Amino acid sequence: MLEDKNKQRTSLAELGEFGLIDHLTQFFKINHETTVKGIGDDCAVISHDNETLITTDFLVEGVHFDLSYMPLKHLGYKAVMVNISDVYAMNAEAEQITVSIAVSNRFPLEAIEELYAGIQLACDTYKIDLIGGDTTSSTKGMIISITAIGSAKKDEIAYRNGAKPTDLIVLSGDIGGAYLGLQVLEREKEVFKVNPQNQPDLQEYSYIIERQLKPEARKDIPKLLKELEVKPTSMIDVSDGLSSELIHICTQSKVGCNIYEEKLPLDPQVISTCEEFDLDSTTVALSGGEDYELLFTVPIKDFDKIKGNPNLSVIGHITEENEGVNLITRGNQSIKLKAQGWNSFNQER
Amino acid sequence: MLEDKNKQRTSLAELGEFGLIDHLTQFFKINHETTVKGIGDDCAVISHDNETLITTDFLVEGVHFDLSYMPLKHLGYKAVMVNISDVYAMNAEAEQITVSIAVSNRFPLEAIEELYAGIQLACDTYKIDLIGGDTTSSTKGMIISITAIGSAKKDEIAYRNGAKPTDLIVLSGDIGGAYLGLQVLEREKEVFKVNPQNQPDLQEYSYIIERQLKPEARKDIPKLLKELEVKPTSMIDVSDGLSSELIHICTQSKVGCNIYEEKLPLDPQVISTCEEFDLDSTTVALSGGEDYELLFTVPIKDFDKIKGNPNLSVIGHITEENEGVNLITRGNQSIKLKAQGWNSFNQER
Repeated sequence: MLEDKNKQRTSLAELGEFGLIDHLTQFFKINHETTVKGIGDDCAVISHDNETLITTDFLVEGVHFDLSYMPLKHLGYKAVMVNISDVYAMNAEAEQITVSIAVSNRFPLEAIEELYAGIQLACDTYKIDLIGGDTTSSTKGMIISITAIGSAKKDEIAYRNGAKPTDLIVLSGDIGGAYLGLQVLEREKEVFKVNPQNQPDLQEYSYIIERQLKPEARKDIPKLLKELEVKPTSMIDVSDGLSSELIHICTQSKVGCNIYEEKLPLDPQVISTCEEFDLDSTTVALSGGEDYELLFTVPIKDFDKIKGNPNLSVIGHITEENEGVNLITRGNQSIKLKAQGWNSFNQER
Repeated sequence: MLEDKNKQRTSLAELGEFGLIDHLTQFFKINHETTVKGIGDDCAVISHDNETLITTDFLVEGVHFDLSYMPLKHLGYKAVMVNISDVYAMNAEAEQITVSIAVSNRFPLEAIEELYAGIQLACDTYKIDLIGGDTTSSTKGMIISITAIGSAKKDEIAYRNGAKPTDLIVLSGDIGGAYLGLQVLEREKEVFKVNPQNQPDLQEYSYIIERQLKPEARKDIPKLLKELEVKPTSMIDVSDGLSSELIHICTQSKVGCNIYEEKLPLDPQVISTCEEFDLDSTTVALSGGEDYELLFTVPIKDFDKIKGNPNLSVIGHITEENEGVNLITRGNQSIKLKAQGWNSFNQER
């Protein structure tokens, strides 16, 4: 599980900042005509006929990721997913990213190459142009800052504030897996500390570990909704946990909602791993986070277009604001939801 | 020179990430019609008829700044300048920024408020809209990542690769001051370590210290050039030092150049401080960096429009590529210039 310590090590100082950027980005391709100028000037230049969407996220070693079980290539891939997911969550298309990294002298060139191999795989798979960034040293650890840029027609953009009473609440894919994958990896890390010779068999957790280490952003959902001729009234991605995201939509739309415990889409591996860890699967689904699924609302008239689609689950409906944000349990009890999203400032240092 | 340790301290964990962003950004105004949606959704939305320009930079504590002499408000201001300067360096207008910060628990809320007060002052002064960002904890120190967004008409954008033989090389303002300001501050830091009661009188260094602690980006230059009806054939900002930037322009434009030692614009305080520190003022001007002036080339036919302008100095001219990148000394010797820009990976850790 740990890095191979015998790999070739080339110091970053040998290349310098400009040499490093050139070296790391030499095999990246430009996919979009909207990318007028990529890396190599004071700014990148983009030409959009439509609206331009911008989002940015930090990933800090020791806060957002742990390199003792996160391979660098996976980290690079995931860092791109985390950002472009926010563009898809506007019902838009992601087209460009900038990538800035700060790394301590602990990392040789070969480690940064691994990180960029993951970034490149993500760019190739999702047709994203890498158009800029910054590369510098840090006094401790690795910090990644990515800005994603997308485009959409003005009337296609889905904000968080457009949900209306009676709208259906829809979720793509399934949730809770990424959080449980992290629990398995954390447990194996503890086992490894006690017995470094132990070779864990993680086969039975393959889906949830992949959800944690190599999540996929839902590029397909905005496309699917266009094909179905459905315009979401609001949309958000599930990065901090379903409860937290539902509360964002309801607060900004000035509405309430009921979601139904029995409708929450859970993978069988999520259910079995919850049993093994003695966790409540509904709590995991509501508060887990990091699934990068899309949560959105659609007018009730569109139910026929949505129902039965294997990518989509209708999990509840929007209500008036004074009814609050509620989970209706299997026992038909109504429970008020609280945001239990992740707060990096509450982590132990 | 050091922070007052008795200030009120509010822990960041008390507010949480969303509360913190709301608190810090509550007094920022939106200036541009192109900003369709600012903070508060998965993405910001911008509507540009013209081309969109994007640039991003990291500022890492202990690598790019030292809080023992850089007040946080100045740091916030400078962080914005560093980024929007890259937009002006495309002959474009800066309109929006995103600001991401990662901070350790060492920083109370009041410190982050100071940083944002500087960011806000910069935004107000330069008419920049803060449209997004990320706020998280770090395991060590403060890291700031800013992305600046600008716009320009397609045919007004100045890249690095358009310089032609016989073009004039023009520099805004004067150079070398920021580097010397840093030397003075570093010296005072050493004095402070030995004698914390010492109250330094830095009056005679006020200009160069301001160049280091509170640089101004040259928003006025693209505007001035439009008024003069001059389209630069190439352009770059002087962040890493004049030599390094000249080499960027010449390499990308496939040309050479001659610049003249006697034409380098130096403030009297730069000259006197060089004497005091026993430094060669030409070396400081060529390699100092961080001045955030604009370096550009214009067709020789535009000389009459440029000459005599107090904001602009013609420092040389573009030659054929095989002639190389040269400094012509006061003694009429030709010396080949080397890039001696700053490489963060070569710093001592």
